[in-house]
Amino acid sequence: MSRFITFEGGEGSGKSTQSRLLADALRARGIDVCQTREPGGSPTAEQVRQMILSGAVERLGPVTETLLLYIARGDHLQTTIRPALSHGEWVICDRFLDSTRAYQEHAGEVAPDLIRALERAVIADTWPDLTIILDIDPREGLKRAVERNPDSADRFESADMAFHEAIHAAFRTIARNDPERCVLIDAQRTPEEIADEIWNAVAARLQPGGEG
Amino acid sequence: MSRFITFEGGEGSGKSTQSRLLADALRARGIDVCQTREPGGSPTAEQVRQMILSGAVERLGPVTETLLLYIARGDHLQTTIRPALSHGEWVICDRFLDSTRAYQEHAGEVAPDLIRALERAVIADTWPDLTIILDIDPREGLKRAVERNPDSADRFESADMAFHEAIHAAFRTIARNDPERCVLIDAQRTPEEIADEIWNAVAARLQPGGEG
Repeated sequence: MSRFITFEGGEGSGKSTQSRLLADALRARGIDVCQTREPGGSPTAEQVRQMILSGAVERLGPVTETLLLYIARGDHLQTTIRPALSHGEWVICDRFLDSTRAYQEHAGEVAPDLIRALERAVIADTWPDLTIILDIDPREGLKRAVERNPDSADRFESADMAFHEAIHAAFRTIARNDPERCVLIDAQRTPEEIADEIWNAVAARLQPGGEG
Repeated sequence: MSRFITFEGGEGSGKSTQSRLLADALRARGIDVCQTREPGGSPTAEQVRQMILSGAVERLGPVTETLLLYIARGDHLQTTIRPALSHGEWVICDRFLDSTRAYQEHAGEVAPDLIRALERAVIADTWPDLTIILDIDPREGLKRAVERNPDSADRFESADMAFHEAIHAAFRTIARNDPERCVLIDAQRTPEEIADEIWNAVAARLQPGGEG
């Protein structure tokens, strides 16, 4: 049976590394995995990703940014995620609905009722089975992100630390409010330790062994 | 004091003719008028108009179409409508929020809670002071639209009559549910008779004489 797992967290929390390690572990057990990411994951959605990362959307304001993200998410669901799930694959997605909640709703002040209505209309019943939220002190996360990619230092400095603290708090709130779906993982350890704890959460909740 | 008036109705109901006649009548009384239309009315919004009229958006489904319309509406409000109102002009807009309610919500089955949340987030307090809904039997409206532009016959025939009946019923429902803002005008008369009735409604509700 197919499963839908999302990774969430602030900058430098290790989402892409851990997505890859989980995909590898599942494939080693014979499970077909579709590894994808947002914003992006389909041709139309990648165009929206470029618009957003270039800063071109920022002047249009957080509501328009949210609507563009949901247009991209709808396309990503329709062309990538739902087809993979219907073929029996497990889908692992780096950022999904909770990033919109954290960045546009909690930190960007877009109305919660608009975000909820978009979730119902666009995500509908393709809800993640499990969301892994990687928890890291935002100062440590930014240090790691800049070490990995020194060119990004300017971009991170352009947003102030209060913003990154707000994102950190938002992800913790999301995890606390939805413990059925979300697991908060301490990401201030080695990648191997983190991967072990993620595997234990996946094994306990989704029984990948039941597939083989 | 500035005022915001919208015209609504099905195909061939005479919205653009009557928008122009009302703008002329207001200008004749020394009132500055900004005459605009949707979808469109600003450069970004005109791009969205072309996408929608070309049919390119249709395959993305009614929710995505609605989100694009609201991105365009947000840009139109920000770059055209709000600046005109703040300069003391009267704004007359051919199609606005009620067209989205009629086409995407009533006929397209987009969830009402999403449409309401978009209205609150994007229109916010720039609500029309008066909405003139031109009421015409859809068969008569389509006949007029095709007479005016014979090339459009194919496009109208591609949507079936049940769809145009649904749009007609939707505009009547909208007028009935919001009598404070909306006036339903019988559009099966001469343009001069219709313009007279519209002028009487504008005079009674918005006192344009009080400007001079």
